[in-house]
Amino acid sequence: MSDNSFHPPLRTLMGPGPSDVPSRILEALGWPTIGHLDPAFVGLMDEIKSLLQYAFQTESQLTMPISAPGSAGMEACFVNLVEPGDKVIVCQNGVFGGRMKENVERCGGQAVMVMDDWGKPVDPGKVGDALKANSNAKLVAFVHAETSTGAQSDAKTLVELAHKHNCLAIVDAVTSLGGTELRVDEWGIDAVYSGTQKCLSCVPGISPVSFSERAQHRIANRGHRVQSWFLDMNLIMAYWGGDAKRAYHHTAPVNAMYALHESLLMLREEGLENAWQRHYRNHLALRAGLEAMGLTFIVDEAARLPQLNAVTIPAGADDAEVRTRLLEEHHLEIGAGLGELAGKVWRIGLMGYASRVENITRCLGALDAVLSDMGAGINSGAALPAAEQVLSGS
Amino acid sequence: MSDNSFHPPLRTLMGPGPSDVPSRILEALGWPTIGHLDPAFVGLMDEIKSLLQYAFQTESQLTMPISAPGSAGMEACFVNLVEPGDKVIVCQNGVFGGRMKENVERCGGQAVMVMDDWGKPVDPGKVGDALKANSNAKLVAFVHAETSTGAQSDAKTLVELAHKHNCLAIVDAVTSLGGTELRVDEWGIDAVYSGTQKCLSCVPGISPVSFSERAQHRIANRGHRVQSWFLDMNLIMAYWGGDAKRAYHHTAPVNAMYALHESLLMLREEGLENAWQRHYRNHLALRAGLEAMGLTFIVDEAARLPQLNAVTIPAGADDAEVRTRLLEEHHLEIGAGLGELAGKVWRIGLMGYASRVENITRCLGALDAVLSDMGAGINSGAALPAAEQVLSGS
Repeated sequence: MSDNSFHPPLRTLMGPGPSDVPSRILEALGWPTIGHLDPAFVGLMDEIKSLLQYAFQTESQLTMPISAPGSAGMEACFVNLVEPGDKVIVCQNGVFGGRMKENVERCGGQAVMVMDDWGKPVDPGKVGDALKANSNAKLVAFVHAETSTGAQSDAKTLVELAHKHNCLAIVDAVTSLGGTELRVDEWGIDAVYSGTQKCLSCVPGISPVSFSERAQHRIANRGHRVQSWFLDMNLIMAYWGGDAKRAYHHTAPVNAMYALHESLLMLREEGLENAWQRHYRNHLALRAGLEAMGLTFIVDEAARLPQLNAVTIPAGADDAEVRTRLLEEHHLEIGAGLGELAGKVWRIGLMGYASRVENITRCLGALDAVLSDMGAGINSGAALPAAEQVLSGS
Repeated sequence: MSDNSFHPPLRTLMGPGPSDVPSRILEALGWPTIGHLDPAFVGLMDEIKSLLQYAFQTESQLTMPISAPGSAGMEACFVNLVEPGDKVIVCQNGVFGGRMKENVERCGGQAVMVMDDWGKPVDPGKVGDALKANSNAKLVAFVHAETSTGAQSDAKTLVELAHKHNCLAIVDAVTSLGGTELRVDEWGIDAVYSGTQKCLSCVPGISPVSFSERAQHRIANRGHRVQSWFLDMNLIMAYWGGDAKRAYHHTAPVNAMYALHESLLMLREEGLENAWQRHYRNHLALRAGLEAMGLTFIVDEAARLPQLNAVTIPAGADDAEVRTRLLEEHHLEIGAGLGELAGKVWRIGLMGYASRVENITRCLGALDAVLSDMGAGINSGAALPAAEQVLSGS
């Protein structure tokens, strides 16, 4: 055990999250702590709520950050909306659909799985069939942006389908919020959760959530108590609700809220549509470079997430060795494959503050250098000019 | 909604937590974020584990921070150890025993309540009677240091009682860890949870926990799956466990871990026993001042927590007005009463970094000034000399 303070190594974070946190947000994080019931903090909570409504594009009053990571945000949606015996259509096309199934079952619900290949979007046709075959289903749950594969599903169509069959829709927007189009009210999403450490470029540990009026009605009229005290929205509402008098629920992670506020402010300053466009433009440049190098995307173009680029590991490249060399020599983190894609793909994130021109050239340059040196069969030297061509618009 | 960054007001935090966070910890918090699977971060996790073992005085390998506040740490202990139908002896002498009951019931367990007056310690005699009357009980749960009243219970005796009747013991050490004697292995505690924002003087949002071998055995041999995916220790163990290869579970709150590491390092530098003594010495001085002023403690001396001083609000003092004036004029936060003590007591914390001589004189001076000005019947001018007498050892 060391006797010393920890000083993190320098890294550029281009994995599946956390993404690079700008110094402005780190500075906010380090402001002196105040009490969680201080009037100044209560004012900050109101601002965060309002900024989150903007980010989610919702007017729902039940919009707030859960004081724990995205997996707790997922759990918050399921424990509040699933009751024992409820049938839930769960769409799985990667790791996180599988985690949804776990959640449904641990709530005493029955998960009806709709499976799609990893790297494919959720197929609305299959979901429609499942809904027809399970007319007593209460919920449809799916991942908007699958962090494990880089595939984007058509949230609008899937939510419409759910509603047509009298189901509520739970949507995982961990990797989509702030990086790609997401319109919670317009699309009618009933419960949505995200994470701070992806396209918001905030520190990890907090999960923004939002619930529609339909969802709130269902939560308020449950037959069974919510099995989690910590995540019971009936209690959290009294703390984050609109009343002047807040009921103490738990001690909020005060400093993480400073940082979240700052990250949401940066998003509003840029403008949500501008942020989506920036993610897309930078993706096109990275894509041009990766493809010129000879790497191939695992997701079809139409369903490709701009903020998470999953490419096949080329023959002749040792997965772990490449990532270690990128980290140690180039101070660059890219993501390994997860689940059944482990050892087969790399996941290159261009999320939030990490989605910058200098990161594209940096990543392409480092990959080219390491892969060429290892003798992997790539077109060395082709990546940077191809990316530059896209960036310059020529 | 403001367009501006949030800048917190200056505060001295002498409530029931969060306590003042020293700049050394805030600085660590703001270091650049790295990935949660980065080898450097995995090394940091090992150090945190080892430092937490020191703070808890345990050698248990299942010692780690839960990535959420103390109430989630509480829930982690209950959801992992309570199975549907289990009978649990729950001791309640304040707010947090009531929350334990909520947890037991939401796990499908049956809570057998042992009630003591608010401000009194848990009575081992009553617990013994409850254990005799409920020979099939599986667990005893109690709060070591009741944050809502400032009463300390005899953890060693209560754990012995539990074991004598073949029960495991769950102990809430949210306010005791680092501030008052706590010896997890020596006392045989089976599950313990705490918070970072009390006597560790770290930012709020993280909950250190530890489980004994007996508890680990029970968790590994459950008949029902743990109802929470996020808090399932079987899964968390694979992420925080001793293996070189960590299984991804959730994205750790990386920056909060920097801060926790630094706060634990500061505790080890000071020495655990020295920290306990500092809390006690400063309490004696604050007590002398408060009593000289004419305020009375609600907890008998033998059970009084040095880090949390609950005193009766004097006649002629308006609770909310006093606290507001302390906050606005003196930038000083003290705590209101909670639950059935709301409006009746103030809770003055001397926790962690906030337990310093300058805070004693500051708090006594501000209280004297505000109460005198309001015409509350106190002995104005008596507090500071009385405290000084204790501090100078004369």
